Amino acid sequence: MEHGGDLLSYEKYYDGDLIDYSSNINPLGPPEGLEEVLRHSFKNTEVYPDIRYRRLKKSISSYLKCSVENTIVGNGAVELIDNFIILANRVLVCTPSFSEYEKRAIVHRKEVIRIPYNLDFTLDTLTIGNKIQKDDLIILGNPNNPTGFRIDKIELIILYNVIKKSGAYLVLDEAFFEFCPMDYDSIDLFRKTKYENLGIIRAATKFFALPGIRLGYGCTSTALAERISKIELPWSINSFAESAGNFIFSDREYIEESKRYIQEERQLMLQALSKLSNIKVFHTETNFILIKLLKWNEEYVFNFFLKKGIVIRKCSSFIGLNDNYIRVAIKSREINKRLIEIFNELECI
Amino acid sequence: MEHGGDLLSYEKYYDGDLIDYSSNINPLGPPEGLEEVLRHSFKNTEVYPDIRYRRLKKSISSYLKCSVENTIVGNGAVELIDNFIILANRVLVCTPSFSEYEKRAIVHRKEVIRIPYNLDFTLDTLTIGNKIQKDDLIILGNPNNPTGFRIDKIELIILYNVIKKSGAYLVLDEAFFEFCPMDYDSIDLFRKTKYENLGIIRAATKFFALPGIRLGYGCTSTALAERISKIELPWSINSFAESAGNFIFSDREYIEESKRYIQEERQLMLQALSKLSNIKVFHTETNFILIKLLKWNEEYVFNFFLKKGIVIRKCSSFIGLNDNYIRVAIKSREINKRLIEIFNELECI
Repeated sequence: MEHGGDLLSYEKYYDGDLIDYSSNINPLGPPEGLEEVLRHSFKNTEVYPDIRYRRLKKSISSYLKCSVENTIVGNGAVELIDNFIILANRVLVCTPSFSEYEKRAIVHRKEVIRIPYNLDFTLDTLTIGNKIQKDDLIILGNPNNPTGFRIDKIELIILYNVIKKSGAYLVLDEAFFEFCPMDYDSIDLFRKTKYENLGIIRAATKFFALPGIRLGYGCTSTALAERISKIELPWSINSFAESAGNFIFSDREYIEESKRYIQEERQLMLQALSKLSNIKVFHTETNFILIKLLKWNEEYVFNFFLKKGIVIRKCSSFIGLNDNYIRVAIKSREINKRLIEIFNELECI
Repeated sequence: MEHGGDLLSYEKYYDGDLIDYSSNINPLGPPEGLEEVLRHSFKNTEVYPDIRYRRLKKSISSYLKCSVENTIVGNGAVELIDNFIILANRVLVCTPSFSEYEKRAIVHRKEVIRIPYNLDFTLDTLTIGNKIQKDDLIILGNPNNPTGFRIDKIELIILYNVIKKSGAYLVLDEAFFEFCPMDYDSIDLFRKTKYENLGIIRAATKFFALPGIRLGYGCTSTALAERISKIELPWSINSFAESAGNFIFSDREYIEESKRYIQEERQLMLQALSKLSNIKVFHTETNFILIKLLKWNEEYVFNFFLKKGIVIRKCSSFIGLNDNYIRVAIKSREINKRLIEIFNELECI
């Protein structure tokens, strides 16, 4: 199980519709009105997407509050990460983190340097500073998947300066950005730097509940944006993703409502799960929770949940974790309650 | 102008809707009923595409008449070509051909060997045989873009044997396959070889008139299919492309009608344009025509057509051609007539 969301592989083990706690999608679903917009954009499939994505980049830049020249787009966040990797010399990854960072580096035959997170999943900035060299790329999940940990604002500024001074590059994978408390926005935070040697990557996938549409986007320096435009696959953003990107960011009410909803559910779930004695719940700032199993292994718990129609994320495939870890999403109230109930049942075994 | 289909860049020069003769899309549009199918698949955007594309590969394999294990899919044909390039050592391209072959090779830092087509755009098989080495990849458009030339069946078999014997790889880019006369189907032709060291790539883009949906697919050996599955970007086929791929191939009537239509229009256009004395028209087996301008350069002719609301393809960006070449699509009867009229007007200048 390399990625969450692969329900098709487990359908045969449960008689009924499975509930997916293994991928981390906004439980409120996509913004209302999007279906209508996509319905009207059917004709766009008959022409090539704009190879320069002019209108789409304008919509995104206005949402991100950066200029069009700083805006980059991709087939999901993962294609943008891939493009940065192609440009890099060595690739530094902190473990545990999203497996594609290392996987894409290997595909492109880049040397990978693994730096473990500290035991509390904070960054080992000292080691990063010691290891990083000119033209290296370091990719950091912010918040990080699967730990839910978000980099402290001051620490991030210090780290960026170290990286930039080394002539290296920092990519922040902020695919879960909007779910986080709004203590800082890295696009705002780094505006004065003109995003030199920096890429900040986000996506419609998680927060706008559109994993099927494939729309990643981000903000980087004009120099890096230009270098990326020279290596990216042509037309990799499909016409429906283009249309969606021109619509979803304007729905302010949906955005605020989703943030509030997840914040509330996060508190409720963290509170309820923290009471249990046979699991250790890690603090999270986003819409998923990493859990250490103190009594069972992932396989046992996975099957326990599967029998009840719920698919959770086993975590032994993350380098730096073992089979004592699982990850669960934060979804809507009713089914979160069901999830908590099952954890309580586990407690009694 | 690196690619056709970029109408947005020319809108300001014409007061009205531009007609696109620069990209080569089935003028009959996508199969009827597809809009309905996509409308019903809106909910699929809320879940990840199947990371292994199980149902989609089944639909494609049944259309291609190869087994599921031999089937590969990508975000357009270009992503599949890119994946083969990643696996290769050096990349051989015959010029002129689709610019992305060489461009993707450069992105992945592969040495590129250019082998010009013969003057009549047939293959220089002798030179290919001399230059090809173990683990090289040669990519051939079949039919080739922009020349419209299709490799002779016997020559293709001989060439494949030479390439395979060298331990090299052959990729046939057959994005325009269905437009061609049905003298042979390379998937059928090479069935006995189990597609060893061979990739045959096709796409929904041109024939099914779906450039916006991004669906490429193909057939290769099980060994190569497995190697590709290990390097491909996850979820690169969006949910609408998945749904379309499960529908379009079953519309046999549409497929036959489109083939007939293009064949007829091709004959009419070739006949009409061959009569003109100031252009040389190259024979084509597909839905576009390469034209050598004997009196003007591409810029002059491009602007002449643009003033009349038509965008044609300048060809000087193709390595191996110069600014005396243009390419035009074969579209529907009425506007093809208009195109021929304008060529006749040019004749009188």
